[in-house]
Amino acid sequence: MHSYQVGVLGATGAVGQKFIRLLENHPWFTVKVLGASKRSAGKKYKQAAHWIEKTEQPSAAANLEVKACDPAKFAGVDFVFSGLDSSVAGEIEKSFAEAGIPVISNAKNYRMHDQVPLLVPEVNPDHADIIKNQSFDANGNGWIVTNPNCVSVPLSMSLKPLSDAFGIQSLVVTSMQSVSGAGYPGVSSMDIVANVVPYIGGEEPKVQTEATKVLGSLSDNSIAFNDFDIQATAVRVPTIEGHLLSVSVKLKNAPTSIEEAEQAFTDWENPIADLNLPSSPANPVRLYKEDRYPQPRLHADREGGMQTAVGRLRKGTVMDLGYVTMAHNTIRGAAGGAILNAELLAEKGYIN
Amino acid sequence: MHSYQVGVLGATGAVGQKFIRLLENHPWFTVKVLGASKRSAGKKYKQAAHWIEKTEQPSAAANLEVKACDPAKFAGVDFVFSGLDSSVAGEIEKSFAEAGIPVISNAKNYRMHDQVPLLVPEVNPDHADIIKNQSFDANGNGWIVTNPNCVSVPLSMSLKPLSDAFGIQSLVVTSMQSVSGAGYPGVSSMDIVANVVPYIGGEEPKVQTEATKVLGSLSDNSIAFNDFDIQATAVRVPTIEGHLLSVSVKLKNAPTSIEEAEQAFTDWENPIADLNLPSSPANPVRLYKEDRYPQPRLHADREGGMQTAVGRLRKGTVMDLGYVTMAHNTIRGAAGGAILNAELLAEKGYIN
Amino acid sequence: MHSYQVGVLGATGAVGQKFIRLLENHPWFTVKVLGASKRSAGKKYKQAAHWIEKTEQPSAAANLEVKACDPAKFAGVDFVFSGLDSSVAGEIEKSFAEAGIPVISNAKNYRMHDQVPLLVPEVNPDHADIIKNQSFDANGNGWIVTNPNCVSVPLSMSLKPLSDAFGIQSLVVTSMQSVSGAGYPGVSSMDIVANVVPYIGGEEPKVQTEATKVLGSLSDNSIAFNDFDIQATAVRVPTIEGHLLSVSVKLKNAPTSIEEAEQAFTDWENPIADLNLPSSPANPVRLYKEDRYPQPRLHADREGGMQTAVGRLRKGTVMDLGYVTMAHNTIRGAAGGAILNAELLAEKGYIN
Amino acid sequence: MHSYQVGVLGATGAVGQKFIRLLENHPWFTVKVLGASKRSAGKKYKQAAHWIEKTEQPSAAANLEVKACDPAKFAGVDFVFSGLDSSVAGEIEKSFAEAGIPVISNAKNYRMHDQVPLLVPEVNPDHADIIKNQSFDANGNGWIVTNPNCVSVPLSMSLKPLSDAFGIQSLVVTSMQSVSGAGYPGVSSMDIVANVVPYIGGEEPKVQTEATKVLGSLSDNSIAFNDFDIQATAVRVPTIEGHLLSVSVKLKNAPTSIEEAEQAFTDWENPIADLNLPSSPANPVRLYKEDRYPQPRLHADREGGMQTAVGRLRKGTVMDLGYVTMAHNTIRGAAGGAILNAELLAEKGYIN
Repeated sequence: MHSYQVGVLGATGAVGQKFIRLLENHPWFTVKVLGASKRSAGKKYKQAAHWIEKTEQPSAAANLEVKACDPAKFAGVDFVFSGLDSSVAGEIEKSFAEAGIPVISNAKNYRMHDQVPLLVPEVNPDHADIIKNQSFDANGNGWIVTNPNCVSVPLSMSLKPLSDAFGIQSLVVTSMQSVSGAGYPGVSSMDIVANVVPYIGGEEPKVQTEATKVLGSLSDNSIAFNDFDIQATAVRVPTIEGHLLSVSVKLKNAPTSIEEAEQAFTDWENPIADLNLPSSPANPVRLYKEDRYPQPRLHADREGGMQTAVGRLRKGTVMDLGYVTMAHNTIRGAAGGAILNAELLAEKGYIN
Repeated sequence: MHSYQVGVLGATGAVGQKFIRLLENHPWFTVKVLGASKRSAGKKYKQAAHWIEKTEQPSAAANLEVKACDPAKFAGVDFVFSGLDSSVAGEIEKSFAEAGIPVISNAKNYRMHDQVPLLVPEVNPDHADIIKNQSFDANGNGWIVTNPNCVSVPLSMSLKPLSDAFGIQSLVVTSMQSVSGAGYPGVSSMDIVANVVPYIGGEEPKVQTEATKVLGSLSDNSIAFNDFDIQATAVRVPTIEGHLLSVSVKLKNAPTSIEEAEQAFTDWENPIADLNLPSSPANPVRLYKEDRYPQPRLHADREGGMQTAVGRLRKGTVMDLGYVTMAHNTIRGAAGGAILNAELLAEKGYIN
Repeated sequence: MHSYQVGVLGATGAVGQKFIRLLENHPWFTVKVLGASKRSAGKKYKQAAHWIEKTEQPSAAANLEVKACDPAKFAGVDFVFSGLDSSVAGEIEKSFAEAGIPVISNAKNYRMHDQVPLLVPEVNPDHADIIKNQSFDANGNGWIVTNPNCVSVPLSMSLKPLSDAFGIQSLVVTSMQSVSGAGYPGVSSMDIVANVVPYIGGEEPKVQTEATKVLGSLSDNSIAFNDFDIQATAVRVPTIEGHLLSVSVKLKNAPTSIEEAEQAFTDWENPIADLNLPSSPANPVRLYKEDRYPQPRLHADREGGMQTAVGRLRKGTVMDLGYVTMAHNTIRGAAGGAILNAELLAEKGYIN
Repeated sequence: MHSYQVGVLGATGAVGQKFIRLLENHPWFTVKVLGASKRSAGKKYKQAAHWIEKTEQPSAAANLEVKACDPAKFAGVDFVFSGLDSSVAGEIEKSFAEAGIPVISNAKNYRMHDQVPLLVPEVNPDHADIIKNQSFDANGNGWIVTNPNCVSVPLSMSLKPLSDAFGIQSLVVTSMQSVSGAGYPGVSSMDIVANVVPYIGGEEPKVQTEATKVLGSLSDNSIAFNDFDIQATAVRVPTIEGHLLSVSVKLKNAPTSIEEAEQAFTDWENPIADLNLPSSPANPVRLYKEDRYPQPRLHADREGGMQTAVGRLRKGTVMDLGYVTMAHNTIRGAAGGAILNAELLAEKGYIN
């Protein structure tokens, strides 16, 4: 049924590599063109990329010649995934959209753009509809869809059942982020082995805004942001994959018992469950009852890295509830989330 | 001037070893008797203790015969430090106090006892005075003084300048705690290498209460707890020494600018500075301005492990301020804090 | 075709858990009885085991009642896997063999027994035949087969192609062993975070002998050990899974070029490839050409954790060759290796 | 008595920072000029250097203006330390020597130069004398002295007592090297957290040659290399400071007992002990008897990071002896070693 030729922008970087690995045997999407910086263009992918994945580099990708990130080089693709660095994503993604090539991006550049959905399929699938009015391409073929930052994804997903049941008033979050979040080579081992670094440049502003757009409501083809406030502290810890968030949340209508809060998670229904998208986890937001769970090293890979884990749900003394949440930052929080976005958009008929 | 013979209870454990290392060349205190479990009693310390400190085991201690933790075995000591495990500290510490031997304890058992000071010399030195009314020993010679839990120490110290300047309304804290906090062997490497464990048994209740006693006020020989609320999440991270706290705090009279908040730290004066106690840091609460500081591995050892570091002080979006704070958990937050308590009590004339 | 009911001895330990995970969907073997210590006996497995695997505890196992390790409790099983600690494995395994229940063991106790094969199916499949003469069970139903220590497995497997091509004279090996090798809780995080411990109790004698039995020859129903000498240093490093060995080897007939040495690996043929055993890796000994490979964290899981990786093959200055080799210590080097042994023994008709 | 003005080349790098920290309160040497790349030149040191040391940046250095590494900018210094990267050290160090400024270098460029001593004061202090014949500066004022690579230092030091007692025939070494050996940012955390990387570019050739020069003999103003062979494997492990070496050594006249080997270490006398140089450790080569020692995290800092630790000395099965040795790679193996070299050269009257 669904069969698409796709390109990957930023293919040699850490997120680009994750796209290539996750798409290796994808039932709908076939990687046809790989784009990277001029330094890599012209080389075979296997020469251009310093492969850091645990699995073998897919042989199909290995032998593709890397192209410059120029729409003219991407003839024949139905859309592109972008794992571009934000320093270049702005111009390049726009050029693809203007050239009529849909862009499904992990970069931050257009996340707050008022015509661009910040899409988490299980949370705000209806936000996809605002791409109809995007003005990048007068013909309506090219557009941009983004996924949130790797912290904002589990934050939004874990808040969704609470938001539906009780409404979110405000929250305080400390995100303990793994080193893969900074790409490769990224964080120096001299900084992080047996250490915690209490700052990640540019991270907190993203965490403090994105979830309010994701949990916003669609009306008249625009997104009204949700009205809760977020106070964020982002720190780096020596884990490899999986960002763990400690969340304290004040609700509009607080539950009277912790069982009622648990029930909100149990009762919550994944709105896209019926679509059976290839990358869709069976249990997108899983509530763990064991105090010691979830843990990045043990649980980040659950359901192919697409599950958001919630644990230690308990009554708070200052805010109404406290909990921790964790998701695989480079799968659910980046490449895997973007692929799920593409699946939803394909299923909804936005990709031709 | 000051010259005391001291005993150490729980001498073979991780905190006991830290006592022995820190007391090696102490100008006032000489270790005379080491107490441990029955299994160790009768052995030389060098045989009984699985030494885990980086420095050489002090030879004086190495050759002492370990005794059972029985007051009768501690004749001649002026007081004891207790690094006992809480499972046995209750009975043993009481027996020493009743026998007329002052106990300066790191255990949790008597921290909330209404006759027992929870003492941080730079924060609440006056609380020491309630020991005059302790009823453990009718003769008034034996008493118990405690120091707070290793998270509550930097929390209390970092809050003190803010409390003095603005008053504390409530706070949310996530503590990222090093493995040494669990003693030896403590945390399994299988649990924590490249991981974060989102739970530390029994820790959060301590963090949620102790600072309100430390920052309480003394009147009529009793402590009136401070009235702020604390919501705590305690997680284990793969660091060796130094607990890092992410704090979001609501104040009674919020400063109008971040400079005013910084000024509160700069202006704050250490009330015991004039005493020049041997273990007293020159700068007990240091405000770092570099975003990437403080870090456990880099800064826990500053000022002999006795400094509390504060960093990333900034305006909050939900609470008034956000900051991180860090202190060496087994020095400032345990043995070193207890030694400073002893120095204060000696200086104040409570130890004879 | 093949369908067996199996028991697992030592089911709650780290190796026992690995057996249960690997056997969850095994095409031939169904776990029917779980045995553990008396402390666990009578509990459901989900209560008795502190589950440390990344994947969900298999629900079939979770609800089994744990039994004592008594052959009488294992009626109906065709054989048992043993993940027992060596402190108890000697007596228990013998009691099972004597009771007519075959034991496929990961414990060290019988590895050097002259009637017991030390079996690595790709290296010495013929050694299995000595079980015909085992005297544990006069009826010939019960017997014991062992797999080597987790270092000796990759050592033997990586030596096999060299042994076949050139003969082994002697070798020096330093094994850098992951924390999972010590079980759970095993190595204290206080010892190993950001550290190397240059000693693993009891390990070097095993490494210095086992490979000479594995690479020995069968004649007259007994194993003649190979005649090379091994000098071993075993150290603990902060990795989770995968032991990495640095090997320097002197050969009987040294190759004249490094290409010739590489060819020995390329030309080597897996003698059991035709059997297509369920756990048999496609490439049991893989030679990596990239200098930076193999790495424990990246490659231990290759081929379900059953591959032995070889890399950095190069000419030596003191010994003829140098290389590194690595295998997953709790899969290939323990539970997975034992399961492959069982598959070989079943295929050969030893299990009824 | 001794009072010198010194410069530091490569002052902003990891080794340069170590020089500045170690020289902060040095009794003989005062840092006057700091040299770095053109990018840093003109800035204050506190702005130019991304400070990574645990201790405070020395305020004297912090306020120096960084200069280009041009001899003309170093007027008034008595000599320079070089922590330059090898990519630039060759030209720059030569230019200083030619300009009459002695260079005490940690770079590899001139280590094998036949007029340049590869100096370890406790091992080959007499090698210093070959600088008299160096031809860099016709006036004889400028010259270059080097210290060995961070692995070759503990290797040479641990071999010296054995060489004196038994003669070295050949040895096999696996060095487990900490991340600080690669400078800052150096090793990516993505590569090394919970991992071992079995290759360090360019390291093994240095390890395989340098110790034979260090342990060589001086005759006719030239160094005759020692005649033993070294086979080396260099791997990176996730430790911060301290390289641990596993050594297997064949001796010319093997001891008949392990006690005799231990005696070689005990009897060995530090030839420069009488000089009482400021950075000279009391016990340059310390033999630990506890199996679990030495460990990088526990022991690298012993004696100010200047001690070489030896442990696990035991009889070998292939080579005569096995042992492990460890030293602080950026102090003893780099900046601290260079400072000790300078002290020896000053004491010997080579620096005016």
